[in-house]
Amino acid sequence: MIILKIGGGAAINIDGIMSDLANLQERAVIVHGANALRDKLLQELGVEKKILTSLSGYSSVFTDQTALDVLIMAYAGLRNKRIVELCQQNGLNAIGLSGIDGKVIQGKRNTGIKIEEHGKRRIVRDFSGKPQKVNVELLTWLMENHYLPVLCVPILDENNFAINSENDDIVTLLQYHLHAQKIVQFIEAPGFLKNPDDPDSLIKNMTKEDLEQFEDTATLRMKRKVLALRKLFLSGAVSVLIADGRGEHPLVDALNGKGTTIK
Amino acid sequence: MIILKIGGGAAINIDGIMSDLANLQERAVIVHGANALRDKLLQELGVEKKILTSLSGYSSVFTDQTALDVLIMAYAGLRNKRIVELCQQNGLNAIGLSGIDGKVIQGKRNTGIKIEEHGKRRIVRDFSGKPQKVNVELLTWLMENHYLPVLCVPILDENNFAINSENDDIVTLLQYHLHAQKIVQFIEAPGFLKNPDDPDSLIKNMTKEDLEQFEDTATLRMKRKVLALRKLFLSGAVSVLIADGRGEHPLVDALNGKGTTIK
Repeated sequence: MIILKIGGGAAINIDGIMSDLANLQERAVIVHGANALRDKLLQELGVEKKILTSLSGYSSVFTDQTALDVLIMAYAGLRNKRIVELCQQNGLNAIGLSGIDGKVIQGKRNTGIKIEEHGKRRIVRDFSGKPQKVNVELLTWLMENHYLPVLCVPILDENNFAINSENDDIVTLLQYHLHAQKIVQFIEAPGFLKNPDDPDSLIKNMTKEDLEQFEDTATLRMKRKVLALRKLFLSGAVSVLIADGRGEHPLVDALNGKGTTIK
Repeated sequence: MIILKIGGGAAINIDGIMSDLANLQERAVIVHGANALRDKLLQELGVEKKILTSLSGYSSVFTDQTALDVLIMAYAGLRNKRIVELCQQNGLNAIGLSGIDGKVIQGKRNTGIKIEEHGKRRIVRDFSGKPQKVNVELLTWLMENHYLPVLCVPILDENNFAINSENDDIVTLLQYHLHAQKIVQFIEAPGFLKNPDDPDSLIKNMTKEDLEQFEDTATLRMKRKVLALRKLFLSGAVSVLIADGRGEHPLVDALNGKGTTIK
């Protein structure tokens, strides 16, 4: 089986990915984002997007109840159902589930983020957290019965509240439980770029060890991505492809090694 | 098993219904609306709600692609997931599905509505249709494995497009396939009112035959409701309760006969 992680950019060719997947005839689980749609919706609704940077240097979206409402509408609502619709049109019997549906992805709410604001340090807590448990039985039954699970946030926290979570962490957890042969990540770039601002700096092949070295020299912007990839290999990944989701046949191209292959 | 139809009004006490359902320990399928939320969202997004009245006198929302986007965000997105969250908090392992997920509800797109506009008759076609098929295997497996299916629009049409549909028709089709012992419909009124504008005109008990008589004298506003109830009995319903969803224990009250009982 394969895990497809589809980025939340507006230019990703979902239809092309699903057409490729239908021809491949392999079991799959999809995890998708919707950040472009979420940001558009926030703007249209006049809701301000709050981004916090922790003392350790990582920045993340602050998810209060209003932000979570918008996130649910964008991710589990419009984006998830339009992806499911495109799957159905390509002959894939997709079933869209957020992490809270059937407790597919359960986790633990973050205790808070340490931030510094106006020279003062404090802890702020939002509705976000880390995934910890997967309903493997449900996902396995679905795949065995020819359904294609299409997953997204929110996930369920330890008190049964809906919370936001990082898709990278969800994919890592899924890999740990489902042992996919390949993980393909579709982004709006030719692959893993040495310099994110230079599309010509594509790295064709990387090893797990390269990732470690890379992390030491990476910019803040790249740090989280590299760390997520390293965790993915720690969870048993054997092959990760980072590929351009914007082409006509994104999945075929990815499997043919057009993007970045990490082994 | 029982089928719960939850109206789309903002005042329905979902938490109370789910708390009652958890105590009841009976298999159930839920079908919910979200019209209050959808209308609020349309307004916030500045999208005009188009309502058409057919030549035969029925009025319905005209669902173009923009309206369908908003519908998906409201129904399959925010309302569905917040209901699933409340179920989880009450110990019910709910799984929220729109009709397009796993082809749970498939149907046929309407060929068009005959309308008269500025003295001219024409046919307009939107993304709406009638449900015709239920994925009974999936719903049965879910219930047998202690999941609570929480269903909503959109459904899937014959060309695998997402379309809007009437919840009354969905409930009728579900009843035909699932043979529920009881169907409970939660609304924002004490039950079935002889005069919709008079909350004191509650009809406590009705027979199928009463419905037929009622249809002849009903106002346009009531006609569709009465017709839907008649179809429900034609699909094998034996007991339909129409109950106030706004109380502290809406389901317990309904089962105790507080609203309208139709047999």
